[in-house]
Amino acid sequence: MERMRHSASHIMAEAVQHLFPDAKFGIGPTIEDGFYYDFELPRPLTPEDLPIIENEMRKIISQNVPFIADEMSKDKARELFAAQPYKLELIDEIPDSSVTIYKQGSFIDLCRGPHLASTGEVKAFKLTRIAGAYWRGDEKRPMLQRIYGVAFESQEELDNYFSRQAEATKRDHRKLGKELDLFSIHEEIGPGLICWHPRGAMIRQVIEDFWKAEHRKRGYDIVYTPHIAKLDLWKTSGHWEFYRDYLFSPMEIEGQQYMLKPMNCIGHILIYKSKLRSYRNLPLRYAELGTVYRYERTGVLYGLARVRGFTQDDAHIFCRPDQIEEEVLEVLNLIQFMMSSFGFDEYELLLSTRPEKYAGTVSMWEEATGSLKHVLEKLDLHYEIDPGEGVFYGPKIDIKLKDALGHVWQGPTIQVDFNLPQRFNVCYIGEDGLEHNVAMIHRTVLGSMERFLACLTEHYGGAFPVWLSPVQALIIPIADRHVSYAHKIASSFKNDGIRVCVDDRSERMNLKIREAQLEKVPYMLIVGDKEMATSGVSVRLRSGEDLDIKAPTEVKKRIRAAIEARS
Amino acid sequence: MERMRHSASHIMAEAVQHLFPDAKFGIGPTIEDGFYYDFELPRPLTPEDLPIIENEMRKIISQNVPFIADEMSKDKARELFAAQPYKLELIDEIPDSSVTIYKQGSFIDLCRGPHLASTGEVKAFKLTRIAGAYWRGDEKRPMLQRIYGVAFESQEELDNYFSRQAEATKRDHRKLGKELDLFSIHEEIGPGLICWHPRGAMIRQVIEDFWKAEHRKRGYDIVYTPHIAKLDLWKTSGHWEFYRDYLFSPMEIEGQQYMLKPMNCIGHILIYKSKLRSYRNLPLRYAELGTVYRYERTGVLYGLARVRGFTQDDAHIFCRPDQIEEEVLEVLNLIQFMMSSFGFDEYELLLSTRPEKYAGTVSMWEEATGSLKHVLEKLDLHYEIDPGEGVFYGPKIDIKLKDALGHVWQGPTIQVDFNLPQRFNVCYIGEDGLEHNVAMIHRTVLGSMERFLACLTEHYGGAFPVWLSPVQALIIPIADRHVSYAHKIASSFKNDGIRVCVDDRSERMNLKIREAQLEKVPYMLIVGDKEMATSGVSVRLRSGEDLDIKAPTEVKKRIRAAIEARS
Repeated sequence: MERMRHSASHIMAEAVQHLFPDAKFGIGPTIEDGFYYDFELPRPLTPEDLPIIENEMRKIISQNVPFIADEMSKDKARELFAAQPYKLELIDEIPDSSVTIYKQGSFIDLCRGPHLASTGEVKAFKLTRIAGAYWRGDEKRPMLQRIYGVAFESQEELDNYFSRQAEATKRDHRKLGKELDLFSIHEEIGPGLICWHPRGAMIRQVIEDFWKAEHRKRGYDIVYTPHIAKLDLWKTSGHWEFYRDYLFSPMEIEGQQYMLKPMNCIGHILIYKSKLRSYRNLPLRYAELGTVYRYERTGVLYGLARVRGFTQDDAHIFCRPDQIEEEVLEVLNLIQFMMSSFGFDEYELLLSTRPEKYAGTVSMWEEATGSLKHVLEKLDLHYEIDPGEGVFYGPKIDIKLKDALGHVWQGPTIQVDFNLPQRFNVCYIGEDGLEHNVAMIHRTVLGSMERFLACLTEHYGGAFPVWLSPVQALIIPIADRHVSYAHKIASSFKNDGIRVCVDDRSERMNLKIREAQLEKVPYMLIVGDKEMATSGVSVRLRSGEDLDIKAPTEVKKRIRAAIEARS
Repeated sequence: MERMRHSASHIMAEAVQHLFPDAKFGIGPTIEDGFYYDFELPRPLTPEDLPIIENEMRKIISQNVPFIADEMSKDKARELFAAQPYKLELIDEIPDSSVTIYKQGSFIDLCRGPHLASTGEVKAFKLTRIAGAYWRGDEKRPMLQRIYGVAFESQEELDNYFSRQAEATKRDHRKLGKELDLFSIHEEIGPGLICWHPRGAMIRQVIEDFWKAEHRKRGYDIVYTPHIAKLDLWKTSGHWEFYRDYLFSPMEIEGQQYMLKPMNCIGHILIYKSKLRSYRNLPLRYAELGTVYRYERTGVLYGLARVRGFTQDDAHIFCRPDQIEEEVLEVLNLIQFMMSSFGFDEYELLLSTRPEKYAGTVSMWEEATGSLKHVLEKLDLHYEIDPGEGVFYGPKIDIKLKDALGHVWQGPTIQVDFNLPQRFNVCYIGEDGLEHNVAMIHRTVLGSMERFLACLTEHYGGAFPVWLSPVQALIIPIADRHVSYAHKIASSFKNDGIRVCVDDRSERMNLKIREAQLEKVPYMLIVGDKEMATSGVSVRLRSGEDLDIKAPTEVKKRIRAAIEARS
């Protein structure tokens, strides 16, 4: 596949050369699902050029000319590419004395290969879009024109790709976030900073309430800590040294430097340290829906999925070293429970090991990594190693959620930390009467409220399960004379803890139903003369299906059951 | 009373003069409940000096010498006070050409009076403490010694004062906050920044859940907005101009200045503005438990009551000008409901008018102030005017809560604002199809979570009502063989939504009961052989009273009833 996509890129380059003989060529690598190539051309391309280039490519493919590799000295290559300044630059940077070229038909490219045997082996492809791209990604170098394409083994796979793409576009949380009025990001406030609108906040509150109740049940204590702290703390912690690129700039108060917290650990450590703790008191589990702020470049920010301010569903477990494995095991159980509660059945586990910049000693790292491996094996969980991707203070288990379209999301994380307890002298009195450093486990079971809502939105395509739906039932009076009956029904549903609204606008019923379907309200209760006469409601689901139950008590029972089943 | 306290201060000065003939005298004013006087003395005073001075004062009082006023030229006064450098400095600053002096026995003071007729009229007094005080509060001037005293009309009143003081000390939320393990403030994080410990956070969560449910019921939408925003927004809003002394210093991100939010209004305004709003959509009520940061000098910070970071139970109501009065009325109803839910029956209402620095026009201020007055009068609520104490953007109603000891706390606030809607062009489409500025109402119904917990703690002396108690029932097994029965009882109580703990330490029952009483746990359930044999529990209240119900289902019913009655 890789080889085919790479060859398609060369064929596209040849097609462009046929159409623009003076074209200067940049590079043309493969990417996920396809390829691109960068060109310097005498005029800007338009979307209308793409079918013309595709046609030219089809000709080259039908001629089925072979790809021929050749090796030559750099000097000879420089002669061959004398009219191609970008290629000359690339040749200069190759450390070897000779270079490889690939040739098909009239087109020769500096390329290490490999390629297909001949152009006829390229099966199904499509050029998708044109973009500007600085040569070598450097904004001081010339802006080239980049053409993107996709290529697959068969037309069917290509068609599948486009329907998946269309589905992904429909489910894009940035698009649905606007349509369902869940959240907004304002240039005036700043990029990466989220305003949660009433409906998004309703979903968040349901998640938070569920999360808090489940944590209390499992022996966690909830705490609150401030969003700023003196910079010195972050120097002691090592964040200033190891994590500085992600920190906001400090601010000054009465000659002291303060910083927005990038993590919640330090507040929890100070609460722990506010009392003498004995081995009998451990483990202590402090949980906080803690909003943290981290710097990310504007370019990488992405809706709710990558932001500058986010609320972690955080907790820190302070335990004895001999309790680590049991605690990690319980956290993994909690994660599995949470994931299935929210409808995620598939996920990948990654064990991230020591990064280049790290705190603590190699032996600490080995011990902690060993504990994590041991638990994963005990639970018989399949995992992969992600080498060097640990946080600076310790190794971690990352869990990536697969949404309904197969996209992978950064989700829960578990991190073992022997480093902060040493730096902050976080101790307990052991059975021996002496002070010992506690072990700390950092963990989230959803990740962050922001990214989790993004993931949920795309997973469900905005049709949230009933228990999470901001509006669970919408009552639609057919005419104005049914409005007061609608409100009566609404207040009886409200009393049963169902989130219900009445669409009492003077609009046609069909328009109201269509809008409710766009808003993905799970239950529409339509009330007109017939319903009033029988003290009933007509129920339509967001799928378009009509239910045959009419008695409000039965409908309430059904909705309550859906809420309680979290389905 | 004022006159008596002032005379007591002169009598104290005379007594000090008898004991230290070289004493130099500063000033001696009255303060709440008493008086002080500042002296320069040849040696530092110790607490043992106070009874000696009191004795000397009693002699002067028993001699019943008259207070005699006299007026004289400044030059004559300068001769009279030639040995008193502080008095000379005061004389120089008096703008009049003559000064008043008061004389009793051998003591003469520069003083405008008035005083009692004679020393014998001073009834009941006590000297309370010694402190250092810079002359004129200026740390570059000499440090004098200050003696504080209190004085009342009768010995009974004096005794009452001291028992009230003792009670206030016992109820001090800073002291109880530590004893009940509710919160901490850490120098390492920074002054005025609160860490909520598990028990304090439990109370906060109960309050927040109650608050959210009540707000949803009353048509509020809950939202979340970020803790930082670009500085420019605070320039547009006027906060930068009018409120700068209370703002944290800005921080920089990618060349842009950002600031911690001192108020939640701007996020709510931008959510409002994310859609076109019609007159039919109004009012919109956005509520947020929003944590804000404001600079206060270290010197004025005070436990939870005055802090630098606090969570307002905030809301902004966007309405048409003709809806203001009804909305303010509903807010006042909500406030009255909230206050009675939390056990506050007495409060004072203050209407604060235009301050010196203000935004908007005088006519806007008059209109808004008029609306507030009108609603207060409609509800027949007694209020006082607090001239010039409005916020820069509008007049406000402040409600001060009276706690069980009669102390007054800053509580809810309602502020009408015609200014921000203009500055941010916050509009709705009227019935006429044209754009109109909305009116905004800023309001809190508790004030802030921090100050409200301080007030609740002192009001209840830490013995929170059952629904707010972090631990509602503590199960105390008498011996180790009763522990598993205790846990069985506990889990049945937990299933009924009662916050229950088991004290399963191997300590004596009496110690466990004593500690539970100190922690002010409302119900102690003691289980031993007798209770296990009858499947019962023995119930002791934190008052020490024993209940005669023993059946766990009855006890649960009783506790549930107390929770539901919020009593």
